[in-house]
Amino acid sequence: MTETSLRSYDPRTGQAFGASIPVTPEDEGDRIVLRAAAAGEGWAAAPHTERGRALRAIADAIDADTQTLVGVADAETALGVPRLSGEVARTTGQLRMFADFVSQHRHLDMIIDEGEPGSARPDVRRMLIPIGPVAVYAASNFPFAFSTLGGDTASALAAGCPVVVKAHEAHPATTAATLAVARAALRDAGFDPDVLNAVYGFESGKQLIQHAAVKAAGFTGSLAGGRALFNLATQRPAPIPFFGEFGSVNPVIVLPGAAADNAAGIADGYAQSLTLGTGQFCTNPGLMFIPEGGALISEIERAISASAGGPMLTDRMRQAYGSNMHDREREGVYTVATGTAQAGAWSVTPRVWTASLQDFAAGHERLASEVFGPAGLIVGYPDVDALHAVLSGGVLEGTGVLEGSLTATIHAVEADYPAAARLLPLLRARAGRLIFNGWPTGVAVVWAMHHGGPWPATNSAAHTSVGVRAIDRWLVPVAFQNWPEDLLPAELRRGNPLEVPRISQS
Amino acid sequence: MTETSLRSYDPRTGQAFGASIPVTPEDEGDRIVLRAAAAGEGWAAAPHTERGRALRAIADAIDADTQTLVGVADAETALGVPRLSGEVARTTGQLRMFADFVSQHRHLDMIIDEGEPGSARPDVRRMLIPIGPVAVYAASNFPFAFSTLGGDTASALAAGCPVVVKAHEAHPATTAATLAVARAALRDAGFDPDVLNAVYGFESGKQLIQHAAVKAAGFTGSLAGGRALFNLATQRPAPIPFFGEFGSVNPVIVLPGAAADNAAGIADGYAQSLTLGTGQFCTNPGLMFIPEGGALISEIERAISASAGGPMLTDRMRQAYGSNMHDREREGVYTVATGTAQAGAWSVTPRVWTASLQDFAAGHERLASEVFGPAGLIVGYPDVDALHAVLSGGVLEGTGVLEGSLTATIHAVEADYPAAARLLPLLRARAGRLIFNGWPTGVAVVWAMHHGGPWPATNSAAHTSVGVRAIDRWLVPVAFQNWPEDLLPAELRRGNPLEVPRISQS
Repeated sequence: MTETSLRSYDPRTGQAFGASIPVTPEDEGDRIVLRAAAAGEGWAAAPHTERGRALRAIADAIDADTQTLVGVADAETALGVPRLSGEVARTTGQLRMFADFVSQHRHLDMIIDEGEPGSARPDVRRMLIPIGPVAVYAASNFPFAFSTLGGDTASALAAGCPVVVKAHEAHPATTAATLAVARAALRDAGFDPDVLNAVYGFESGKQLIQHAAVKAAGFTGSLAGGRALFNLATQRPAPIPFFGEFGSVNPVIVLPGAAADNAAGIADGYAQSLTLGTGQFCTNPGLMFIPEGGALISEIERAISASAGGPMLTDRMRQAYGSNMHDREREGVYTVATGTAQAGAWSVTPRVWTASLQDFAAGHERLASEVFGPAGLIVGYPDVDALHAVLSGGVLEGTGVLEGSLTATIHAVEADYPAAARLLPLLRARAGRLIFNGWPTGVAVVWAMHHGGPWPATNSAAHTSVGVRAIDRWLVPVAFQNWPEDLLPAELRRGNPLEVPRISQS
Repeated sequence: MTETSLRSYDPRTGQAFGASIPVTPEDEGDRIVLRAAAAGEGWAAAPHTERGRALRAIADAIDADTQTLVGVADAETALGVPRLSGEVARTTGQLRMFADFVSQHRHLDMIIDEGEPGSARPDVRRMLIPIGPVAVYAASNFPFAFSTLGGDTASALAAGCPVVVKAHEAHPATTAATLAVARAALRDAGFDPDVLNAVYGFESGKQLIQHAAVKAAGFTGSLAGGRALFNLATQRPAPIPFFGEFGSVNPVIVLPGAAADNAAGIADGYAQSLTLGTGQFCTNPGLMFIPEGGALISEIERAISASAGGPMLTDRMRQAYGSNMHDREREGVYTVATGTAQAGAWSVTPRVWTASLQDFAAGHERLASEVFGPAGLIVGYPDVDALHAVLSGGVLEGTGVLEGSLTATIHAVEADYPAAARLLPLLRARAGRLIFNGWPTGVAVVWAMHHGGPWPATNSAAHTSVGVRAIDRWLVPVAFQNWPEDLLPAELRRGNPLEVPRISQS
């Protein structure tokens, strides 16, 4: 039976509620993409400052409606009002960051080579232009910041691309509510609201990635779902770039000095990061290496025992978590501690296991993969030499024990610096963001942020979904050779009337 | 039967000559990649100025050996000593361009967000680092500039990546000779020569793209061969980025004023560009739109009739050209002129056809694709309105008559500027480089050059294989969060001791 409508579910009760949301029929999905493509022409042609103004208008409208939107999202996700309110602020902050960036013409990566009169050397002027309509696959775990108006959408709109969002089944009503506010703001700002739209339902997502008018796609979600869409994107008659972010284990290494110096603080920070949002973060610290012996393992036992679970976003995720728990028990790992269970149909309980470095090395293909939820593996290492040997084995051959991750973290005191310096090159080749004496959850929305990493953290290690460089995914270069001033786009003209940042060979 | 050795062939006679070159066995291919990966560690860690020095040493050594290398290449390709000597100069110029670029630390795309003491805002420092071992598939038609030491190799080495080249069957001895000079220069400069090596034979190319230690690949060649490698790259257990450049039809539009003003000059330029290097350029002007009536078509007839053919690079290409000639004759196009045949086993004859705009629009799926060699289609248009209508049809839907091209060209006089301005947005969405009153062959090696375009010109419209941005393909970001000064790479330190170009949010 083909699904014809979606329902909102309350993760606290497991019950459906509210109005059903129709799945987008195929012909309507086609029309939505074509209307977005048509609206995108004017959007791409608008001055960057005008696009910036429209993005700020959307941000203002979302801010004004925060309370309503957070109510809808909390009912669908059980993530709680404080977290969701913060996420809305992050989302609108992100829209304004991209508005600023493009208003300063900083996304154009302009290079000018002036021709030499009387020589054969041509005048070549290169800048970036929008790639065309973008498909954005909303994430389950961030109903605002990686969803309808999240970083993918904000950066694509800022780049000058129209966007069609595939709503996530975990929060379709949140998508519909956010979309209504954003489209009204676009209309009020004088733009065609069809530059932003959404489709609903599993099949509509497959249709979207294969539509001839769609020129690129962004995705945040599971490796299995992302890989399926990546395969569709690359197997099209005309392949399109696909930017998938799939989450990771985010290794943390606690060096001996830090473990001795601050066992309780590290254990508390770990438990908080591991269980934040019921562990439903792609930056969740799923794998931690600590020195064998010492107080840290018992401090972790204390901190995790005091932690609390909560409801997962979907029943499917709850079931997957339970199945992962079951698998791990058979893999020779030992439970360090479990947290407190909580009431609620889809609630899960935090759990931390431990394994020796030797057992981890032998079983890394099963043990070093992500468990989505508040669960972590602690690996005890006898000394830094042994840890370095295990982590560096097979790295050159592309078969190391650590897969690509979004982040890698080191906890160190000054006495640990030589060990940190030795481990750093191994981590740098395996993760997109390296954190010192902190925790991977909580990705700051700043220009320099990199949220990406080698496979399987993403399928494109060169790209990020957070920070200003997220806009690069939706831009392609064009070079103008020997064009007369009158026909050049304003950005490329001699004298630089728009004051665009440029570099030059000469 | 599995091939075990390659031979050099003389395109002027079709005969094999010289020593046979062994095909790389599978175990040796594996060792070559692993040795490259190991050598790449030191290469990546070397200061950019040191890598720049090594690239300049390679360029100097190649320049010193130009005469010998050109002799080997001319015997294998019949491209002629003048053209090949110029290509060597271009190749070494390119090595020096990338040496300059990285010596100035310009490839790092650095963004710094300083933390605010006492606030939760972290200190985040982002820069680019080498992606790892790169596979480079040499092109048939540029035995130097897009081959062993071509733009892919030069940019990857400059980025800090080791390179394994898959030699092209059209000039294996040229690859071996170039490689020997470059490896000796690397050794003399104090580097491990294994950062650059090559494999030979069809199967070794398939092995290379699937090797777990290979992290990215560059390719210049046919759409069929490139698509096959793209599929292997994306279907790996851990997919890698593949940057393929497949050639294109490179549409040229002659506007009415230009046609009336300069018919003879345009016809001469066209014939020269179409037949240069026996038409074996990815930027060959395979499709030209001219106003119906007027003197231009008879001037083209004159110029093409006076043009000369020559030998193709391989017998397979000669056969494909003949087969394309045969197919076109059955497709309702009319021959305008043929050039002079030339002696030689693999020689082909230039040929130009014409079709009406209406027939072209109806048959574009067959008529608008590339013919590799000195052959072109001239489409006569009644007026600019009609041309605009045909070229804009289906563009939004992703089904337009023009596929993606590396270049698009307009010939115009001032009276044509309004028409040029109207056509420009259509061309900009379909080509990576827009040329005014010139010809697409002859890609200037300057910082701003963009040599890329939408599918099927390339599989990644965001990237270029010429110009400084070619280096972007081999770099990935890493962000350092809250690291102490002593552990930061020199590039990222406070006070900017290396004077790296940086941008910043604050």
